[in-house]
Amino acid sequence: MSAADAFVERLERARSGARTLAAATTDSKNAALEAIAVGLENAVPEIVAANAQDLARGEENGIGAGLLDRLRLDEARVRALAAAVRELISLPDPVGQVVRGSTLANGIAISQVRVPFGVIGAIYEARPNVTIDIAALAVKSGNGVVLRGGSAAEHTNAELVALIQSAVTSAGLDGRAVQTIDPFGREGAGKLMRARGYVDVLIPRGSAALISTVVNESTVPVIETGSGVVHVFVDETADDDMAVEIALNAKTHRPSVCNAAETLLVHRGAADRLLERLSESLLAANVTLYGDTAVTQRVPGVSPASDETWGTEHLALEMGIKVVDSLDEALLHIQRYSTRHTEAIVTRDYANAERFLSEVDSAVVMVNASTRFTDGGEFGFGAEVGISTQKLHARGPMGLPELTSTKWLVRGAGQIR
Amino acid sequence: MSAADAFVERLERARSGARTLAAATTDSKNAALEAIAVGLENAVPEIVAANAQDLARGEENGIGAGLLDRLRLDEARVRALAAAVRELISLPDPVGQVVRGSTLANGIAISQVRVPFGVIGAIYEARPNVTIDIAALAVKSGNGVVLRGGSAAEHTNAELVALIQSAVTSAGLDGRAVQTIDPFGREGAGKLMRARGYVDVLIPRGSAALISTVVNESTVPVIETGSGVVHVFVDETADDDMAVEIALNAKTHRPSVCNAAETLLVHRGAADRLLERLSESLLAANVTLYGDTAVTQRVPGVSPASDETWGTEHLALEMGIKVVDSLDEALLHIQRYSTRHTEAIVTRDYANAERFLSEVDSAVVMVNASTRFTDGGEFGFGAEVGISTQKLHARGPMGLPELTSTKWLVRGAGQIR
Repeated sequence: MSAADAFVERLERARSGARTLAAATTDSKNAALEAIAVGLENAVPEIVAANAQDLARGEENGIGAGLLDRLRLDEARVRALAAAVRELISLPDPVGQVVRGSTLANGIAISQVRVPFGVIGAIYEARPNVTIDIAALAVKSGNGVVLRGGSAAEHTNAELVALIQSAVTSAGLDGRAVQTIDPFGREGAGKLMRARGYVDVLIPRGSAALISTVVNESTVPVIETGSGVVHVFVDETADDDMAVEIALNAKTHRPSVCNAAETLLVHRGAADRLLERLSESLLAANVTLYGDTAVTQRVPGVSPASDETWGTEHLALEMGIKVVDSLDEALLHIQRYSTRHTEAIVTRDYANAERFLSEVDSAVVMVNASTRFTDGGEFGFGAEVGISTQKLHARGPMGLPELTSTKWLVRGAGQIR
Repeated sequence: MSAADAFVERLERARSGARTLAAATTDSKNAALEAIAVGLENAVPEIVAANAQDLARGEENGIGAGLLDRLRLDEARVRALAAAVRELISLPDPVGQVVRGSTLANGIAISQVRVPFGVIGAIYEARPNVTIDIAALAVKSGNGVVLRGGSAAEHTNAELVALIQSAVTSAGLDGRAVQTIDPFGREGAGKLMRARGYVDVLIPRGSAALISTVVNESTVPVIETGSGVVHVFVDETADDDMAVEIALNAKTHRPSVCNAAETLLVHRGAADRLLERLSESLLAANVTLYGDTAVTQRVPGVSPASDETWGTEHLALEMGIKVVDSLDEALLHIQRYSTRHTEAIVTRDYANAERFLSEVDSAVVMVNASTRFTDGGEFGFGAEVGISTQKLHARGPMGLPELTSTKWLVRGAGQIR
């Protein structure tokens, strides 16, 4: 069989397996999830051994410590993955939910119901936990899935996908609904992006560069899970303690994730009383600050901001800080530099709060809360599909319903037009 | 100014104008719609004169009678357009609708509200009515719009866009939210497909070839309004009269539209009593039938089907007709050839009806009703945005809410994680 045929065969298996998952009851999908969790727990030695091969090759190839850490699976991490899969069992099954419906004047009954997409494609980098995450979410939402997980995690992913396939099959469903195209390398990823008719939606997870490549090259519809140049604006009337707590929490609680704040804007009317306190709290928490001149002139230890500061997603203990003359200037700055993920205002002024909520065009807009709350778990969705920064289909934290489409069921009694 | 700069300037005007539309009240958007309707009625002579130029050039270039007819605007058609714009006034404004919301355990209140996309791009062929349709829908849903209407309608569209712009401005909103890029020709269409950051969603309307080009070349998210290879399946237990009425209505009521049926599948168990009657009714309605051998052997006047018959959207009084052994064979045929628009079963069997509804993977699946009911107007949406055959964002008939995105508003009292 040629490589091209072998590639198409995997897509066809995923599609055909997806049909059994689409028709599966919630009980059998939950049984498949439990089987995956048990499978993970039983295969800890094999998974860790396969992972060791990937880690050894990664070290040979000189990949960085951060990447190596994300690639690593030890027993504790495998057990945590199993626990995450089990959490999905208790979540409501979106498939079959009636979204809306009515009876038309002619007596025809129409109802719009949630159905699985069919086959989800996922392209991500060397993080084997995503293999389990996405496959488990796909199973629960009744979708097949084609995974492309990055060659650095090839051995680990092969072990995990084989385990998932046999777990799903052991639950009486078609395990072929879960496929990997890792053996087809970069060329396979390119083909997946053009696999219209086989793949219904493509979800890239990873760096901005990866997401941008998928968005630009894919002919399959994409759900973009984007990067976050996230802003906190401290308004003139902000409560002082609240402003400091939110700025600190938004920046330092978990700096490596997309809902961490990257830029702090401070209203000139609050700067006199708050600029030093805000800056010093952040500096004391080991945050490197890049300030405009209004900040550097007043606060020692703040580096001068460069042209790149305001558009950068640091994902680290680094932050831009800028004094603005007004809410309008804050809104303009956000409009220019935001990636439309999350922005927050800290204020006691009702009109400013409502204007900020209304005028900021981001997936999540907050008043007096830490940007760290933009999260599927915090929103009560119970599972982390990703945070969409696009406007089509899903925006903001995505739960299981965002992994479904709908169809209209029309029940008549012979009506014609 | 270079052509490239002039192009970008139009996109920027649309985006900046869109911001005023996004913040506009329903009353002012409705006033803008009324101004467009009045503008159309007052400018009939100018519109008809501009249209005459396009028609004359079209005749010179030898374009077909069908295309010329779709290009033509006379007084009656302009008045009908004005009436269609006025119909939008009474429809609910989707912007600001709260989709869902809750108060989290920590006291944070979250709500998901409908917001305009921002700027909609539209690429369509020489049908000037689409210029008015899309612009009016964009105004009502608070979106800016960039129109690319095909060079054959260039003079008409220029007249219409100028009219819309001044009508919107006269209502106190920013008329620059509506832009045309017709002067930039094919190159402009290509640029529009890659105008990420300026255009939030692209809607192609027209031929399958146009839609396919947009889907393949666009880096802006696309809502595909697709073609319909629509099936009617007459099951073994179908009511005879109902089967004939639905087949006839689905094929002949308006053959040129996407919800018209293209293939009639007849269960072998119904063929003995119904195949002649079905075929002869359709032939008597001037439908050219292409049958498999089971049909051609029994019914005179039916041409033999070719390999292309089953995948063709005729959009004319032509239809494929085929005898199948079972519901399973019908489902397989539909799975293979359907464009996932609309399929209908005619049956008296409860289990078969439910199985058809469940297993057919199309935007609209019907029991005992004509496929002609797949229509925004019939579904009670009141406006025809198009019928989506994709699974992302919108599926089936699209109303005004499908021209919006959402954002999450988060109201806190200083919560941190």
